[in-house]
Amino acid sequence: MGPKMRTRSVLPIIGRIVIMIAISMVAPLLCALYYGEKEIFVFIACIIITAISGYLLSRIRGNNEGLRLIEGMAVVSLGWAIITVFGALPFYLSGTLGFIDAYFETMSGFTTTGATVINNVEILSKSLIFWRAFTQWIGGMGIIVLAIAVLPILSIGGMQMFDAESPGPKLDKLKPQIRETAKILYGVYLLFTVAQIILLLIGGMNLFDSTCHAFTTFATGGFSTKNLSIAYYNSTYIEAVVIIFMFLSGTNFMLHYNLLRGKFNYFKDREFMFYTAVVIGSIVLMTLDLSYNVYGNIIDSFRYASFQVTSTITTTGFVTTNSDLFPSHSKLILLVLMFIGGCAGSTAGGIKNIRILIILKYLYREIYQYIHPNAILSVKLGNETVQENILKDIIAFFIGYIIIFVVATTIVTAYGIDIITAISSVASTQGNVGPGFGLVGPMTTFAGLPAFIKIVLTFCMWVGRLEIFTVMVLFIPDFWKE
Amino acid sequence: MGPKMRTRSVLPIIGRIVIMIAISMVAPLLCALYYGEKEIFVFIACIIITAISGYLLSRIRGNNEGLRLIEGMAVVSLGWAIITVFGALPFYLSGTLGFIDAYFETMSGFTTTGATVINNVEILSKSLIFWRAFTQWIGGMGIIVLAIAVLPILSIGGMQMFDAESPGPKLDKLKPQIRETAKILYGVYLLFTVAQIILLLIGGMNLFDSTCHAFTTFATGGFSTKNLSIAYYNSTYIEAVVIIFMFLSGTNFMLHYNLLRGKFNYFKDREFMFYTAVVIGSIVLMTLDLSYNVYGNIIDSFRYASFQVTSTITTTGFVTTNSDLFPSHSKLILLVLMFIGGCAGSTAGGIKNIRILIILKYLYREIYQYIHPNAILSVKLGNETVQENILKDIIAFFIGYIIIFVVATTIVTAYGIDIITAISSVASTQGNVGPGFGLVGPMTTFAGLPAFIKIVLTFCMWVGRLEIFTVMVLFIPDFWKE
Repeated sequence: MGPKMRTRSVLPIIGRIVIMIAISMVAPLLCALYYGEKEIFVFIACIIITAISGYLLSRIRGNNEGLRLIEGMAVVSLGWAIITVFGALPFYLSGTLGFIDAYFETMSGFTTTGATVINNVEILSKSLIFWRAFTQWIGGMGIIVLAIAVLPILSIGGMQMFDAESPGPKLDKLKPQIRETAKILYGVYLLFTVAQIILLLIGGMNLFDSTCHAFTTFATGGFSTKNLSIAYYNSTYIEAVVIIFMFLSGTNFMLHYNLLRGKFNYFKDREFMFYTAVVIGSIVLMTLDLSYNVYGNIIDSFRYASFQVTSTITTTGFVTTNSDLFPSHSKLILLVLMFIGGCAGSTAGGIKNIRILIILKYLYREIYQYIHPNAILSVKLGNETVQENILKDIIAFFIGYIIIFVVATTIVTAYGIDIITAISSVASTQGNVGPGFGLVGPMTTFAGLPAFIKIVLTFCMWVGRLEIFTVMVLFIPDFWKE
Repeated sequence: MGPKMRTRSVLPIIGRIVIMIAISMVAPLLCALYYGEKEIFVFIACIIITAISGYLLSRIRGNNEGLRLIEGMAVVSLGWAIITVFGALPFYLSGTLGFIDAYFETMSGFTTTGATVINNVEILSKSLIFWRAFTQWIGGMGIIVLAIAVLPILSIGGMQMFDAESPGPKLDKLKPQIRETAKILYGVYLLFTVAQIILLLIGGMNLFDSTCHAFTTFATGGFSTKNLSIAYYNSTYIEAVVIIFMFLSGTNFMLHYNLLRGKFNYFKDREFMFYTAVVIGSIVLMTLDLSYNVYGNIIDSFRYASFQVTSTITTTGFVTTNSDLFPSHSKLILLVLMFIGGCAGSTAGGIKNIRILIILKYLYREIYQYIHPNAILSVKLGNETVQENILKDIIAFFIGYIIIFVVATTIVTAYGIDIITAISSVASTQGNVGPGFGLVGPMTTFAGLPAFIKIVLTFCMWVGRLEIFTVMVLFIPDFWKE
C-alpha cells in the first residue's frame, strides 16, 4: 500500500458534507421567503445544484478499507475548498459578486475570517446577508469539531495535547468519536448563540441583526450587517456584550462544556491564564498609547482599546473605530495579536495561545540548557510535561506559519501594494481575523485588490484555518502519486 | 560546582582583549600623526586609559580550573560589550558624540553593522574616520574567529555543524584551537583586504578611502568615508569591485581558505549554492520590479538591484541609491534579505543561509512525514545527515531570532515611531546590516532617534551579532547566582 491518497475514499465523505451545505441553505431560503425577496429562486437553484452535486459525490464507490492519515487530511483540506464553491453560489448566481469575489467572501465565511469584498453590505437582500453570517456560524461549528476531535487524531501542529480525552491515533474510531464530541460542542455553541441574541435584543438591536451578529461573534467571524460594523450602534452596552462573547468564543470550548457540567476550570487552565494575561496586558498598553496620543482620556481609550484588542486576538474582526488611524504602537500590538490568535479548541484562528506559551517555555529551556548543559530538562505546562514529539509538532507549526506569511507577503507586494497593507492583509487573512491596515483597513474592504491577490489571500485564509499542514501536504507530489 | 558563572575567571581574559583594543588604537594614532590632527592627544589618552584598564582586568586572580561553557559565553558577550566602552572613547573624548551615541556607533562598528548616528561623516578628522572603519575590520576579524572556532565549541545555534574540522566539545582545547584557526583566517582576511585596496585604487579612489572601504567591505560592515556611501563615486567599476568583495565576504571563509590551498570547493558547498541562488533570484525579481516601476530599463535596474541585493544579504549596508524610494516589492525583498543574511563562517550577520536552508528542509520533512507516518526521515544536506541535536539548536536559534525581533519592534513603536521604521531598524540592526527604511533609510542616519531607542537598537546589534544565545543566557538568574 503506497502513500498515495485514495481520492475515491475521500470524495464520498466530502459529498456528504456538501449535502449538509445544501440543507443549511434552507435557512436563508426561509429568510428570503419571509422577506419576500427575489433571492427565493437563487437559493432554490443553489440548493438543487448543491444537493445533486453532493449526492453524486457521495455515490462514488471507494474501497472500504477505512481512512488513513492522509485521507483524513484530504477530507478536511479538499472538503473545505469544495464546499466553498457551493457556498459561493448564492453570491454568484444572484449577480452580487463575480466568481473570484464570491469564492473569497465564502472562504472568508467558512473560515470565520470576516474579510469582505462587499463595499456596501446594507444594500444586499436580507437573505444574502443572512447566508453570509450563516456561513461563519456553520464554519465555526466545523472548526470546533475539527480542532477538538479531528486534528488531534491527525496529530496536526501538536493539537493532540489540547484534548484531555484524546482518543489516540486509531483512525477507525474517527467517526463515532467525532459524532459524540460534536453533539456536546454543538450544544454549547447553540446555547451561547441564543444567549447572545437575547442580550443584543435587550440592547435594542433588532432580531435580524442580533441573530446575524450572534452567528458571527461566536464563530469569531466578524461579518456585520452594517458597513460600520459594531461602530454603527455606538452603544457601550452592545460593545460590552460583544466584547464578552468574543472573549468567550476565543476560549477553549471544553472549558465552557465543563462549566455547563458544573466544573469551573477556567483558572486551572494554563492557556486560558496566558490568553487572559495577553488580553489584559495589550489593553493596558493600548489604553495608555491611545490616551496619550489620541483621545486624551482614559475612559474612551479603554473603551476602544478593549474592543479592538479582544476583537483582534479572538480573530473576530469587528470594529468600533478606525484602528488604521491608531498610533503605530497600538497598530503593531494589533498586528502581533493577529499572529497570536485565540485558544486551541475555540473558533479563533492564529497561532494559538497554547503554542505561543509552549514556544516561549521551549525557548527558555534552550537558553537554560546552556547553563545546565548536563541536565535533562523538559518543557512543562503546569505539572504536566509536554512530550517532545508534541513540542516538535508545535515548533514545526510555528515555523511553517512564519514561512507562509513571509512568502505570501512577498507575493502581495509584487503587485505594488504598500508594505503595511501587504503585511497586515496576509497576517489578518492567515490568522482568520478579517480587516488589516492601509488599503484593507477596518473602514474599507478587500474589493479593490487585484484578482490574483484575492486568490493569494483566499489561500491564506484556507491554509491558516486548517492549521497549515492539512493544506501543505497537498503540495507534496507523493500525496497524489505512488 | 554550581552553575554560577565565575566572573573572576572571565574578567582576566576580557582584560587581555581590552589590551588588544589599546594596541589597535595605535593605527588611528599613526593616522592622526600623519595628518597632523589634534586627535593625536585623544588617541594617546584613549590608549592609556584602555591599556591600564585592560591590564588591571587581566591581573584579576581567577581560579585555574579552566573555562566552562557558560564562562566561554560570558567572555564573548560581556567581552563584546566591554570593549565597546573603550572603542567608544575616541568619539566621546574628542567631543564628536555623546556617550550613548558613541557607544551606538562603536557597537555598530565592532558588530560590523554599519548603522550610524553621524549625520556628516565628511567633517570628521581622518583619524576618527579611520578608527570608525577600523572598528569594523577588527570586529570582522573577531567574528570570523568566533563563528569558526568559538561558537561551534559552545554549540551555539547549531554552529557546530559548520566547521568540517570541528574540535569537539573539549573546552580546555579552546585556546590552542582558536590560535591555530585564527592565524589561517587572518591570513585570508588580510589578503582579501589588500586585494580590494589595490582594485579600488585602480578605480581612482584615493588610498585613504580605498583602505577604509576595504576595511568595511570585507567585514560586511558598511561604514563609508562619504555621506553618500558608494553612491558618491558614481562609478560602475567601483560598484562592481564592491559587489564582488561583498559577495565574497558573505561566503564561508573556509571556502576561501581552501581556494588558497588549491581546492576549489565553492560549488560543492550546499550553503554557498543556496546563497548564490537567493542572490540571483532576488536580483532578478528586483531588476524586473525596478525596471517596470522606476528606471524603465533593464540596465540601470540591474545595476542598482545587484548592488542593493548583495549589500543587504551580506549585511554590509553600503548604498548606491536611495532604496527607501524603491517600490514596496523591492523593499520587502530587502527586508527579507536582512533576515536571511550571509553564510555561516563569514563576517555577515542575519540568520544565515545554512540555517534557512536546513529549516526549509526540516519543514519539508515535517510535511512529508504526514504522508509517510511510519518512515524515519532525516534532514540531509547533500549526502550528510543533519543530526537531530544540531537541528534542534538551529530551530531554537530561528525562533529566538523571531521573538527578539517582535519584542524589540514593539518597544520601538512605543515611542511613536512608524511601523516601517520600527520593523526595518530592528531587522537591520539585529541582522547587522546598517540602514533600514523610513526614518533610518539609506540617505539618513539613526541620529534623530530617542536615546532609549538607540539603546534598544544597540542591544539588537549585540544580540544579533553574538548569535542570540550568547547574550540571552545573561538574562537567566542562574547565570549569576548558584
